[in-house]
Amino acid sequence: MQPSGVITITTDFGHKGPFAAVMKGVILARYPAARVIDLAHDIPAQWPPEAGFWVSRSFQWFPAGSVHVAIVDPGVGTERDILVVEHAGHVFMAPDNGLLAQLLDNADSARVFRLDTAKLERLQLPAASATFHGRDIFAPVAAEIAAGRLTAAETGTLITEWTPGWLDEPEVSPTRVSGVIVTIDTFGNLISNIDGDLIKAFREPVANIAGHQIPMLQTYGRASPGDFLALVNSFGVIEIAKAEGSAAEGLGSARGAPLSIIDGYSA
Amino acid sequence: MQPSGVITITTDFGHKGPFAAVMKGVILARYPAARVIDLAHDIPAQWPPEAGFWVSRSFQWFPAGSVHVAIVDPGVGTERDILVVEHAGHVFMAPDNGLLAQLLDNADSARVFRLDTAKLERLQLPAASATFHGRDIFAPVAAEIAAGRLTAAETGTLITEWTPGWLDEPEVSPTRVSGVIVTIDTFGNLISNIDGDLIKAFREPVANIAGHQIPMLQTYGRASPGDFLALVNSFGVIEIAKAEGSAAEGLGSARGAPLSIIDGYSA
Amino acid sequence: MQPSGVITITTDFGHKGPFAAVMKGVILARYPAARVIDLAHDIPAQWPPEAGFWVSRSFQWFPAGSVHVAIVDPGVGTERDILVVEHAGHVFMAPDNGLLAQLLDNADSARVFRLDTAKLERLQLPAASATFHGRDIFAPVAAEIAAGRLTAAETGTLITEWTPGWLDEPEVSPTRVSGVIVTIDTFGNLISNIDGDLIKAFREPVANIAGHQIPMLQTYGRASPGDFLALVNSFGVIEIAKAEGSAAEGLGSARGAPLSIIDGYSA
Repeated sequence: MQPSGVITITTDFGHKGPFAAVMKGVILARYPAARVIDLAHDIPAQWPPEAGFWVSRSFQWFPAGSVHVAIVDPGVGTERDILVVEHAGHVFMAPDNGLLAQLLDNADSARVFRLDTAKLERLQLPAASATFHGRDIFAPVAAEIAAGRLTAAETGTLITEWTPGWLDEPEVSPTRVSGVIVTIDTFGNLISNIDGDLIKAFREPVANIAGHQIPMLQTYGRASPGDFLALVNSFGVIEIAKAEGSAAEGLGSARGAPLSIIDGYSA
Repeated sequence: MQPSGVITITTDFGHKGPFAAVMKGVILARYPAARVIDLAHDIPAQWPPEAGFWVSRSFQWFPAGSVHVAIVDPGVGTERDILVVEHAGHVFMAPDNGLLAQLLDNADSARVFRLDTAKLERLQLPAASATFHGRDIFAPVAAEIAAGRLTAAETGTLITEWTPGWLDEPEVSPTRVSGVIVTIDTFGNLISNIDGDLIKAFREPVANIAGHQIPMLQTYGRASPGDFLALVNSFGVIEIAKAEGSAAEGLGSARGAPLSIIDGYSA
Repeated sequence: MQPSGVITITTDFGHKGPFAAVMKGVILARYPAARVIDLAHDIPAQWPPEAGFWVSRSFQWFPAGSVHVAIVDPGVGTERDILVVEHAGHVFMAPDNGLLAQLLDNADSARVFRLDTAKLERLQLPAASATFHGRDIFAPVAAEIAAGRLTAAETGTLITEWTPGWLDEPEVSPTRVSGVIVTIDTFGNLISNIDGDLIKAFREPVANIAGHQIPMLQTYGRASPGDFLALVNSFGVIEIAKAEGSAAEGLGSARGAPLSIIDGYSA
């Protein structure tokens, strides 16, 4: 892998306090030419699936050779492992708590390593605090990989098993696909884990959520103001929207809400 | 125009999810040396005037040759056009929905182009999604302009008409100027669209808002704690503040509230 | 001091509007190679102690030679001074309102200068607005220092007195240390101003807050879900947490709440 020098950071740290900032400080201290991008910091506290969802759906928009660090880490300081993954010309780092499961379930060619700090002695990592591995382990290792001084393979041991994801993969039948709402954006759009490809063969796909049947359209502007619509969004998954409004408010639906796409309206 | 390599991004995407981040990924993939600055992402959902206000009042603080991308885009995926504007040594990109009207109304020398993707074939843009032109059109075109590989003029067709702004320009008479509150900052200061120059000739300017008459002062610290004051703020427009407090809460005023500056107190 | 080219910014500006962004524009216009990091912008409005706390606890994670700008500035536009501090190979800039007192109280070797704009004529600063010294004074001066074209000493006059901090230093006795909660993070962890070193000699340290006695543990994962715990956090201070929950909500405690660490449980 030819490093791009780009590192993305995804966390549940929110925007209060200097937590993401000190990670950037550590990165720049090791690798001054790094370009660090905040992918998202508003992941719901200690809920890894949304972080994994966004990383798996976003990484391909970054230059090949980027390093993607994702930290939602209720087990920080305990015995949980850290994974370093090489996949599709990118590197991913996350706690082994299911966060990367979505990515790995759909990535046969991914190589997955369990980080072994004993192998990293030459990096002279600081003594890790018990509560902020983002700063003490993830940031310096990501910096070294992004700088081209360390490969994913050199960080640890190749493994073939890891913690499974927290969400079931969508259930698929010839006329129905069922999944869940993974996240809600600023506009109140409900974003699901159902890939648009799963309903490609449907002649008349209809979204079923919260007792509503909602038609699939091309874009927000195709619906009348106030109407609900479903669409395959720009990240390739089914999204429920309300034209010029908030679908989340309109439907009273939240993260985790079940969603089915059915071929044809039911009576 | 000599590009500075700086790109600013203004949106209503908020801070949830990776929407601004993937724009940066696309920019860095095309132009690794770009320096991308988030101007603001908390523009009220689908309300272009605030984005246009901040872009028009902020761009001059960036290096000449910067590219300013502003996306508040209820019409994404419909037939609405995209404008590329060259003005005062900077380039601006936004949907043609009134967002840039404020800037253009005060910029006689601006050259305005309607983006024509047919003219951009050599850029090999991806097939644009129906819902995220920020990533698929704005980001790559901005990157090419910032990199000096594309000029505003090369992006489309010179035009002389565009969608008007959503807010009326302030009404001006010799003893009274009337406008509206465009935005409220974190401190609760109410920021209007009335340029301070419009009241330069007033001997005793008094702000009238929400039934209050409020004196004009130089800065927050000149008022007693708890008192309201009006001032020409650092962006050159009239602002209503409450010393050591929130004018928005104190007055019960919100975005869109009418404000008049009158020369002299009324009985 | 050998400049690193890195500038951090800490403010109470929040994320609405382009206030931090235009500071970055001004910096890049003077020093295009600057790397600007947002340390934190969600400092409670006009409460300097939290800004000073985070700067003093974070700067060491940035490359030596970085410039740290902190602006929580109720007195902007009045006669309050601006301090430029050289300490431990870093430079700090802040209004002289107590913000940097915490840092200076623990930094005998710090050199403190009162900014004197008369000495900065060659920088050709703009006429400063009355309300945004962050843009008009802090940003350009920080850029010049980060660029290596200006030293802290050249910015003003060496002084030995400055405005004291707003918070008392912790009270220390052989079996009890008392301090306050300085800030609350996104997870609801309560972060105090009590340095972990102050209780190093305690055999059985117990945190007393809001009528609760809470044990000290190593990390969040060592407590049962729902239990409170105290720990020395990754910034070296005592923090009160609730495993898989929010200590702030659980205890009803907020910024400013008193906290004592006592050696041994009381009856």
